[in-house]
Amino acid sequence: MSQGFPESEFQTRTTAAQARMGEAGLAAILLTTEPEIRYFTGYLTRFWESPSRPWFLIVPASGKPVAVIPSIGAALMGKTWVDDIRTWSAPEPADDGVTLLAAALRELAAEGKVGLPSGAESHLRMPLTDFERVKAAAGMEFTDDRGIVATLRMVKSAAEIEKISAICAIAGRAFGRVGEIAREGVPLTQVFRDFQRLLLEEGADWVPYLSGGADQDGYGDVISPASHAPLRTGDVMMLDTGAVLDGYFCDYDRNFAISQASDAAKKGHARLIEATHAGLEAARVGARASDVWKAMADIVGGGEGVGRMGHGLGMQLTEGLSLTSKDHTILQAGMVITLEPGVGTGAETMMVHEENIVIEASGPRLLSPLATAELPVI
Amino acid sequence: MSQGFPESEFQTRTTAAQARMGEAGLAAILLTTEPEIRYFTGYLTRFWESPSRPWFLIVPASGKPVAVIPSIGAALMGKTWVDDIRTWSAPEPADDGVTLLAAALRELAAEGKVGLPSGAESHLRMPLTDFERVKAAAGMEFTDDRGIVATLRMVKSAAEIEKISAICAIAGRAFGRVGEIAREGVPLTQVFRDFQRLLLEEGADWVPYLSGGADQDGYGDVISPASHAPLRTGDVMMLDTGAVLDGYFCDYDRNFAISQASDAAKKGHARLIEATHAGLEAARVGARASDVWKAMADIVGGGEGVGRMGHGLGMQLTEGLSLTSKDHTILQAGMVITLEPGVGTGAETMMVHEENIVIEASGPRLLSPLATAELPVI
Repeated sequence: MSQGFPESEFQTRTTAAQARMGEAGLAAILLTTEPEIRYFTGYLTRFWESPSRPWFLIVPASGKPVAVIPSIGAALMGKTWVDDIRTWSAPEPADDGVTLLAAALRELAAEGKVGLPSGAESHLRMPLTDFERVKAAAGMEFTDDRGIVATLRMVKSAAEIEKISAICAIAGRAFGRVGEIAREGVPLTQVFRDFQRLLLEEGADWVPYLSGGADQDGYGDVISPASHAPLRTGDVMMLDTGAVLDGYFCDYDRNFAISQASDAAKKGHARLIEATHAGLEAARVGARASDVWKAMADIVGGGEGVGRMGHGLGMQLTEGLSLTSKDHTILQAGMVITLEPGVGTGAETMMVHEENIVIEASGPRLLSPLATAELPVI
Repeated sequence: MSQGFPESEFQTRTTAAQARMGEAGLAAILLTTEPEIRYFTGYLTRFWESPSRPWFLIVPASGKPVAVIPSIGAALMGKTWVDDIRTWSAPEPADDGVTLLAAALRELAAEGKVGLPSGAESHLRMPLTDFERVKAAAGMEFTDDRGIVATLRMVKSAAEIEKISAICAIAGRAFGRVGEIAREGVPLTQVFRDFQRLLLEEGADWVPYLSGGADQDGYGDVISPASHAPLRTGDVMMLDTGAVLDGYFCDYDRNFAISQASDAAKKGHARLIEATHAGLEAARVGARASDVWKAMADIVGGGEGVGRMGHGLGMQLTEGLSLTSKDHTILQAGMVITLEPGVGTGAETMMVHEENIVIEASGPRLLSPLATAELPVI
């Protein structure tokens, strides 16, 4: 698989955005976050880890996007399809791109409206004080982007799906080797380090996300850092990873019983796999996110109080729709989502299972290697 | 080293913020980002990788901070010193914490002003539409936080410095093993994977940041992803990592010559080490960030056009001051910074060197193992 995408990919995305901008009466869309800027340019760097510099991309009503970025990024942005790259030497305390951005917006969007992603999962990656300065300097109307960017990103191209599929396969090979690193007596902190190592050995570029838990019959929490406590016989250990290849995530988990599996854990796991199959059955073009949620909730129980049981996936660990009772997004071919049912296995323990799928016209296709109903013992 | 901090650490941070809030006339500070919320609570999770849910922390004029967070985080937040934890089931499309947050702000800050971090390096991690709803529902005055949070975070406690020192030592051991993974013929992509593996083997919790480059006499860019091209004899390879232990970063690099070092590379490296020593000499309590920058710039040349040559370091890869000609922040004991001079080694190549230090009353103390003037050949 080659790095990045052909220019046609970005042309298609930009043209699609511009068609919707025209309908919505937006003269430009202003982007400030990593996935949004990368979506329209292919600009891929881990340098976003530094909060010190703001980055801007303007999608005008027609033509290629225009980058307004710190000069340290000019060489890399110059390798993308973007031609118009305007830079300043950041960080610049007195004017950190404010004047340059305002002038570019005025030039490109004239008297029109500027749309900013403003809905669920979005944020503005620049200081609030500078945002107010940009608005004042540009003297234009700023509004939300009508959800255009988020909506476009929800449906993946074949080339995007290929990347997600590749990282899912890498994670599958790493999960297949968990027996090498986890056993009674090993602390979960060590398992976390070693599992990230396995992901890298199997070909991941990096591992932005790893969570998990381990306790008797299940675990109490799926977002805490790993504990230094050693694994014990009868623990159920879960590892959930968001590893990345060429800027695209997998996000799925696996459960393992340490040395032996309790009845509660075996039953919990079988129930989760049953729910996953029900989710798969429901995940058809035209179904709503809430329908897929209900198919799984009917099996794991809990009713409306049960939280989300899956979500979209792609350039971010979670993005787009949520499988909840309240998200009625219609599934379309090309959407990549996770199925993530959870089930209580004791008064203070639960188990969670997760798979990654792509919605196709003929039905869902598994990107992660579907787990069997039998809880693996290692 | 134990995980996390004793409660006294958070009490001290909160009391210090509240003293400054009193002087500034702020009735509360509202926080939305990972490092800011962790600074006042110790709430540490990689779950922030998901953008789907907003998280809020209110620092009131007195007493402990109050968390307004998705219910999925309640158990973990319950392990911190925070007592007042208000939750909702997120994501909730109709009201994703807006009403709950507005009510908490009204209750805790009455008719007073709410400060938000709004200056350099800050951003608001919530949808803009919801921010407008919170402002309308709370009916209070929102303003910047007078830089209180950023200013406090710039000076590290002994316990914070211990964590940064520990991750610097881990990275030092990994850099010491680069000869195991890099040689002529190995692609830089593979070196990147293997170096992350070495960092994990040596004890890093995870590796949020790795950049680098490799080319004859130097490299053209320090933020691009690794290339698939194999290393060649005479390449200068640089690896720059931000690895994390217990939520604290190191951020430094090392240069290596592959098989043999050219004169240009040797001279460049020696110049960088000379500049680093000059930076060390200048990095004293009472000096300005710009003084340290100038000490290094005088050796590597380039004048005002030379970009930043170091920055603060801690819970984020880069935070706080910048070593530039325009940042006149006064160095204080307890500040942890990087010294990061760069030098041109050819028409399109450069080299960059970086070390991590803590400013102490008696002078700077190295946290990374200071490189020698001789460019290592592997």
